[in-house]
Amino acid sequence: MKKFLDDDFLLTGETAKILYHEYAKDMPIVDFHNHLNAKEIYENKKFDNITELWLSSDHYKWRALRTLGFSENLVTGDGSAKDKFMSWAITLPYLIGNPLFHWSHLELKRYFGIDDILNEKTAEDIFEKCNEMLQKEQYKVIPLLEMQKVRVLCTTDDPIDSLKYHNLIKKDETIQIEVLPSFRPDKVINIDEKGFNEWVDKLSDIAGFKIEKLDELLQALEIRIKFFEESGCKTADNGIDNFVFENSTFEEAENVFLKIRNNDIHITKNEIIKYKSYILLYLAKSYHKRNWVMQLHIGALRENNTRMVKELGPNSGYDSIGNSINVVKLSNFLNALDIKNELPKTIIYNINPSDNHKIVTLMQCFQDGIIPGKIQFGSGWWFMDTKDGITNQIKDLAANGVVSKFVGMLTDSRSFLSFPRHEYFRRIICNIFGEYVESGEYPNDIEFLGNIIKNICFYNSMEYFGFKFNKVN
Amino acid sequence: MKKFLDDDFLLTGETAKILYHEYAKDMPIVDFHNHLNAKEIYENKKFDNITELWLSSDHYKWRALRTLGFSENLVTGDGSAKDKFMSWAITLPYLIGNPLFHWSHLELKRYFGIDDILNEKTAEDIFEKCNEMLQKEQYKVIPLLEMQKVRVLCTTDDPIDSLKYHNLIKKDETIQIEVLPSFRPDKVINIDEKGFNEWVDKLSDIAGFKIEKLDELLQALEIRIKFFEESGCKTADNGIDNFVFENSTFEEAENVFLKIRNNDIHITKNEIIKYKSYILLYLAKSYHKRNWVMQLHIGALRENNTRMVKELGPNSGYDSIGNSINVVKLSNFLNALDIKNELPKTIIYNINPSDNHKIVTLMQCFQDGIIPGKIQFGSGWWFMDTKDGITNQIKDLAANGVVSKFVGMLTDSRSFLSFPRHEYFRRIICNIFGEYVESGEYPNDIEFLGNIIKNICFYNSMEYFGFKFNKVN
Amino acid sequence: MKKFLDDDFLLTGETAKILYHEYAKDMPIVDFHNHLNAKEIYENKKFDNITELWLSSDHYKWRALRTLGFSENLVTGDGSAKDKFMSWAITLPYLIGNPLFHWSHLELKRYFGIDDILNEKTAEDIFEKCNEMLQKEQYKVIPLLEMQKVRVLCTTDDPIDSLKYHNLIKKDETIQIEVLPSFRPDKVINIDEKGFNEWVDKLSDIAGFKIEKLDELLQALEIRIKFFEESGCKTADNGIDNFVFENSTFEEAENVFLKIRNNDIHITKNEIIKYKSYILLYLAKSYHKRNWVMQLHIGALRENNTRMVKELGPNSGYDSIGNSINVVKLSNFLNALDIKNELPKTIIYNINPSDNHKIVTLMQCFQDGIIPGKIQFGSGWWFMDTKDGITNQIKDLAANGVVSKFVGMLTDSRSFLSFPRHEYFRRIICNIFGEYVESGEYPNDIEFLGNIIKNICFYNSMEYFGFKFNKVN
Repeated sequence: MKKFLDDDFLLTGETAKILYHEYAKDMPIVDFHNHLNAKEIYENKKFDNITELWLSSDHYKWRALRTLGFSENLVTGDGSAKDKFMSWAITLPYLIGNPLFHWSHLELKRYFGIDDILNEKTAEDIFEKCNEMLQKEQYKVIPLLEMQKVRVLCTTDDPIDSLKYHNLIKKDETIQIEVLPSFRPDKVINIDEKGFNEWVDKLSDIAGFKIEKLDELLQALEIRIKFFEESGCKTADNGIDNFVFENSTFEEAENVFLKIRNNDIHITKNEIIKYKSYILLYLAKSYHKRNWVMQLHIGALRENNTRMVKELGPNSGYDSIGNSINVVKLSNFLNALDIKNELPKTIIYNINPSDNHKIVTLMQCFQDGIIPGKIQFGSGWWFMDTKDGITNQIKDLAANGVVSKFVGMLTDSRSFLSFPRHEYFRRIICNIFGEYVESGEYPNDIEFLGNIIKNICFYNSMEYFGFKFNKVN
Repeated sequence: MKKFLDDDFLLTGETAKILYHEYAKDMPIVDFHNHLNAKEIYENKKFDNITELWLSSDHYKWRALRTLGFSENLVTGDGSAKDKFMSWAITLPYLIGNPLFHWSHLELKRYFGIDDILNEKTAEDIFEKCNEMLQKEQYKVIPLLEMQKVRVLCTTDDPIDSLKYHNLIKKDETIQIEVLPSFRPDKVINIDEKGFNEWVDKLSDIAGFKIEKLDELLQALEIRIKFFEESGCKTADNGIDNFVFENSTFEEAENVFLKIRNNDIHITKNEIIKYKSYILLYLAKSYHKRNWVMQLHIGALRENNTRMVKELGPNSGYDSIGNSINVVKLSNFLNALDIKNELPKTIIYNINPSDNHKIVTLMQCFQDGIIPGKIQFGSGWWFMDTKDGITNQIKDLAANGVVSKFVGMLTDSRSFLSFPRHEYFRRIICNIFGEYVESGEYPNDIEFLGNIIKNICFYNSMEYFGFKFNKVN
Repeated sequence: MKKFLDDDFLLTGETAKILYHEYAKDMPIVDFHNHLNAKEIYENKKFDNITELWLSSDHYKWRALRTLGFSENLVTGDGSAKDKFMSWAITLPYLIGNPLFHWSHLELKRYFGIDDILNEKTAEDIFEKCNEMLQKEQYKVIPLLEMQKVRVLCTTDDPIDSLKYHNLIKKDETIQIEVLPSFRPDKVINIDEKGFNEWVDKLSDIAGFKIEKLDELLQALEIRIKFFEESGCKTADNGIDNFVFENSTFEEAENVFLKIRNNDIHITKNEIIKYKSYILLYLAKSYHKRNWVMQLHIGALRENNTRMVKELGPNSGYDSIGNSINVVKLSNFLNALDIKNELPKTIIYNINPSDNHKIVTLMQCFQDGIIPGKIQFGSGWWFMDTKDGITNQIKDLAANGVVSKFVGMLTDSRSFLSFPRHEYFRRIICNIFGEYVESGEYPNDIEFLGNIIKNICFYNSMEYFGFKFNKVN
């Protein structure tokens, strides 16, 4: 019997162990998509206690607490830091087969050196031990990131964001980590959501001119894209819950834009789609010009629980996996770009695992024979960031694509403690490769495979995004 | 090599064996959804022969027989009990990898003590041996149920059912098993199916007043729900093949009801949806008031083969798995209830396994921080009641929900011999938990895990439905 | 650790090894669906070099090359045979977890006796060694087929094809392999695709009468079906990307046909569906009369990349997996045939693996109790012809159908070197059966299982298609 979370956690054969320990483990981290706060990085934030650092923004944990029957007071409410931590300690042992059980213990171990299992009995000691450590200099944000060898991280930013803290970090020579923004234009695309006009007004203020017509909107977006680029941005991230696409003209898109700007409510669903398609296509072309990577996060079903979202706001644990992606629409979108040689490097993330094979096989239709792995199948996202989800993503990519060119893992997290998810991913992929070798499905060429592993952990993404060239294989 | 169907059937490691033999095996059975006949229980029916008991209502077996090329005569027709049994004995060995092979041999072993493999050579002996036993008192219905430690079972009943036999059983002190009805209102929801008006007329007779308007229908349903409650009912079961939902008003629903009552055929699909949505929502609120559990069986595609269904009627083996559930509609339905704090405890069963992750993640959006595991992901149903189907249901639930709060297995069966399916399920879940431990993915805390297993096998459902409180963990 | 591609490749237990080596390995091959060229068989083509034989028509390999960044010149273009081969040799090691890695090495081993791993270092030697062998008589097409014990193969042929080479092969007593045509009527069904009218004109020429009305079209098709039948055809293959079906009348179908013939462009989507449904139904009835097998290949999404398809034509690596099949439509189609007892033997192939369970359970609704395994779930197709894809197809069939009656594998290939894919399939199914036995899920009755394996490898398809009766079990 294997001990829980020992050095060879998730590694079942000798090959997997060698691949992980000798190749994967020590690679630095490129976290090319997350929701971390640049201000907290720049200010090298100190946390009052483990509850603030670990539980205050983690809606994965909140969902588990609610399922155990803990009231909102102990989840997101006024409960004390200690009571909340105790609730989590009571909950955790029940999460058999859930990645939260693995992540949580990896996080306690890697950051705090705690080897105990967190449960009702150990909770008090662990709470105190962690809080004591958090008072120390080396448990502020930047040392926490350095502890995990984070070399590059990309936050997720609104086009109207000032990027003040990104630019301050850039100038600060004491900060070794590259903290880059990502351009996230969801608000300009989702014309059917509340607050669109207010957002355009803000964009107008920042751009310094009135936005009355569509070309003014596009011009203002270009200005912001340029500004992001100057701040080191290499990628745009697009959250598209229900992927729609129709060919549309400038006039059609402008017609919808003018209606919304004039509060004309007579807009059809199809008009909305026409507008969204036009803007997404426009932006994609702009990314292509700058050699940016376009990330598409497709298929979440958000804010299912109106009552609670009204109380707690978005991202509080009320999202789920939506219906299967209409892959014909996604194909038409990629094709509309490719046909004019304007398809940027693209990472497609699906959240519904029954879409894996559709995405991998579609993606392979747009590899261009120039940029290796130009179109990427994104790593297991959100609800798929589980052992099985990650395993299937890797195997499905390998089976119909080229896993060697994969840009690998990202945390997508709001917490500074989530980086051991890279370790989780690395152990899983080393184990998959190891099993291929041990079962006679791939030759025992450790050095070659080890370099592929290093590429997937680090070099592939460095090169793909253009962060810095330092290619091994 | 492991011997077929030995004591450690489906158990691959020591931990799994301990969990099964020391915790799961001896737990009583709560079978909270099946299609058993209360009259046959009350009358403690004696079976003439094994064919009647084993083959006469099992459309799973019928499908296999037809695939082997056996004519309907030997499946559902006039063939002799012996010839039908022989046909099944010839068929069974061909069912490699099919749960029927496991179930059938478990059933022969557990009820009749037969360890032989059923095939053409052994069939005659087994036929005679079983038939001999069936003449004995201990092979009547009630001892058969007791043999498997069935403590509670819930049948499936039409709202107009008199529940005569449920009430007779209740009063009969010699019957130790709780036999409770479930309220199954499909006929009042499926307004677009034949026989709706006749059904409403019967409801009217039972209620004792005319049902001309919608509020009269609702009033009559309330009367029946109350009657079911007084007969011990704790749950409603809803078979919804194609889940639809639109917000609708009383007036919209009544409009459709009146049209149907007046045989007005000018009804649109959308009107039907409005009516169905209104009634389902109304009933759900009524379940919530009574603290009933709402079971939703979603996604079957029924009666595909018109020719044979005309000959044999429904439930004769011509159903299949339908298209993927529209999870947006299901979300809207749950949300419409939750928004007014009227969402009952709910078990969602999907039949299309590619919907697993959608259902688990949606369900977690409606856990309320009060009732542990309030919204449940139902165990592998019908075509998913296979080794892989059960395994995936458990692992998918564990990965994005809290498996420890799972209410576990049910037979959904029409046969008094189906209870070893609980054993099948228990072996599978013990094996999954055992593998987590042996592979170092969960600590080796047998006592804690053993109690979780006991809860999933028995206590969780006892508490969740409110059958009787006797909680272990 | 198992050696790569040793004698027991993919076989993990003793039972699997016995099943493969003693039962499966030596069975002849029936390849009942592929895209081989009858002319090249008749002429016993000699290949100039390994690039021509191995890389010139294989769009699986092309996709991998493009993903590695090789320009079209080295994929489908003017690059030299040697440069193309070198590019492939560089690419192959990167295809970890991809069936191309297994297939390619199996092909080098089985046809050329090459045990080395193909990579940049070994490429030159292997290129020369293969080319040398290809100059020999025993490396012409017919000996290559004989080397793999191909007994029957069915090509894919347009209804207007002259079948000249099929008929020449038939008369040639030196050719022992049965090379039969398959009737592939896609062009007459896809009325909405370019070239329909030209195709009908050609059909008209061949039939020898004008095709102005629908009954003339049907009459001409009947003539061709009869001609195919006389040429030994036993099956029709239908490629249906998006399966649609509506009940339609002769008049409705004719109305659409006349519009298209008269270049009337005012045709609705629904009219197209009516026409397609009518013709497909008509043809299916015609297949049924002749006891042909109807093959349905459903769900590909073709020609996603307009730019490249314009350059290279169809089947050049720009296809993918489409959205999930609408199983209600497929059910209605099968039912429309069954209701009049006109449903032919049918093999349903889906390309989206999340449809597996829908297809297996639907198929079981149309088994007729006369022909064993009348409706078949086709083996892993195209992108599902992977280790996991094949495994899931077999297990999903076994779990809800009767795997023993399965007609097994086909290559669907355009290459004369693809027949080791039968070996790949055989190893996988022997391993699955072996695991059932070793894990105690099926009794250790090797002889019975061995005969089932022989049937699935060979006898089932021989009998099902009526190629020749020589049944073992």
